[in-house]
Amino acid sequence: MAAAVAVELVHTFSLLHDDIMDGDTDRRRRPTVWKAYGTGPAVLAGDALFALAVETLATQPGGAGAVRTLSAALRDLVRGQADDLLFAQRPWTGPERVRPDEYRAMAEHKTGALLGCAAALGAVLGGAAPETAAALDRVGRHLGVAFQIVDDVLGIWGDPHVTGKPVRGDLRERKKTFPVLVALDSPAGGRLAVLLESGDDLDMAAALIEEAGGRSAAMAEARRHLAAVERALAEVPLAPRAAGELRALLGFLVRREV
Amino acid sequence: MAAAVAVELVHTFSLLHDDIMDGDTDRRRRPTVWKAYGTGPAVLAGDALFALAVETLATQPGGAGAVRTLSAALRDLVRGQADDLLFAQRPWTGPERVRPDEYRAMAEHKTGALLGCAAALGAVLGGAAPETAAALDRVGRHLGVAFQIVDDVLGIWGDPHVTGKPVRGDLRERKKTFPVLVALDSPAGGRLAVLLESGDDLDMAAALIEEAGGRSAAMAEARRHLAAVERALAEVPLAPRAAGELRALLGFLVRREV
Repeated sequence: MAAAVAVELVHTFSLLHDDIMDGDTDRRRRPTVWKAYGTGPAVLAGDALFALAVETLATQPGGAGAVRTLSAALRDLVRGQADDLLFAQRPWTGPERVRPDEYRAMAEHKTGALLGCAAALGAVLGGAAPETAAALDRVGRHLGVAFQIVDDVLGIWGDPHVTGKPVRGDLRERKKTFPVLVALDSPAGGRLAVLLESGDDLDMAAALIEEAGGRSAAMAEARRHLAAVERALAEVPLAPRAAGELRALLGFLVRREV
Repeated sequence: MAAAVAVELVHTFSLLHDDIMDGDTDRRRRPTVWKAYGTGPAVLAGDALFALAVETLATQPGGAGAVRTLSAALRDLVRGQADDLLFAQRPWTGPERVRPDEYRAMAEHKTGALLGCAAALGAVLGGAAPETAAALDRVGRHLGVAFQIVDDVLGIWGDPHVTGKPVRGDLRERKKTFPVLVALDSPAGGRLAVLLESGDDLDMAAALIEEAGGRSAAMAEARRHLAAVERALAEVPLAPRAAGELRALLGFLVRREV
């Protein structure tokens, strides 16, 4: 219970601060906190949630290990967010461009670390073997990368009525997502960079990314990480009910692929 | 050592986020981080320092108690910052005005909690008796309130060449500091509110605050808290060298009063 509360607190903290960093004005069709109440209160609300998360774990019996797990995840999370900010400043093409491998590491930190922490924290607090906690951490990290890359595909080709995101939104915002980076790495990279930079014909950009293999490479990459999730899950001596719930979550992620 | 590192990390985190919240563009004559690098990177840098502080303590032997001490201080810190933000929105006069007592509680949270944590953390990590840690926490909290109120006096009457702050800066920024709140609570309150609101004659506002007893009440309040520091220190079985260093710090604070 304490683990779930702490993870929810940290997750909300990270959404609050993320929206400030990305300048996002909407989240699920509602104004973001900084947009509605101002940057200062949003920064502060995030800090409060973060402090509460730490306190929630630190006041549990044997909470020191849980706090270590959380703070290591936070270090990765911040590193991932910093890389994400830095990626935006790098060029589309040339030796300074962002490689798909760098993106994968960023996604593991930014999205996977917190999911890994969420998966492992209950085991840590419950006194499970370190290998069990480590395997659950891997479950969450691979799940995070898969989730992020599926999100990238939806951000370009998803149905806005289903995703709640604007059509071609990620292309309009010039996001360097996995499918885009794969396509930029292909012979079509130069042409795509011009299209993305001008922002004139995003449908053509989406078609070019698909043609260059960005979409299929992204789905293959997501599937590889889901397979790694399955392998890590198989190492964990889970109660049938918990295992069923985790697999249901995976199913949800896969259905989202549509 | 770990305690000092953690406190320094948290202190810098709080300065970084504070400057965003207050919209301060300068700190000690240099641009603040958000001003120099943008709000997003400043939020993120603060989060990184916060996470590192928690990790620093959590990886110490017996670090759980230290993390609890830190997270309780952070809860107070955030509460104090939130109150500070809310005070700015309340009227100068009338039943909704901010009372000096509320200000004292805010200052204890915003400035005192972290100093209390700084004073207590070494004792907590070193396995001192809980009463010792609690007395050191009180030392820091009273020191924080005294420091804040002396800072308020300097923000109105201090020599800009010494303080590095603009003349009457706190009045220009319409800050509801302790001397101002005391004067607003006096029969001269209505006249002062008009002066502060217009911002036309800040020298006259400063004179009116002094005449209404705001300055002397502030110094008396600061001295009361310094006396409470002395009393709390007397309860602590400190090594002579540590006691000497703490008293030197108090002396520095008192000299600042000029």
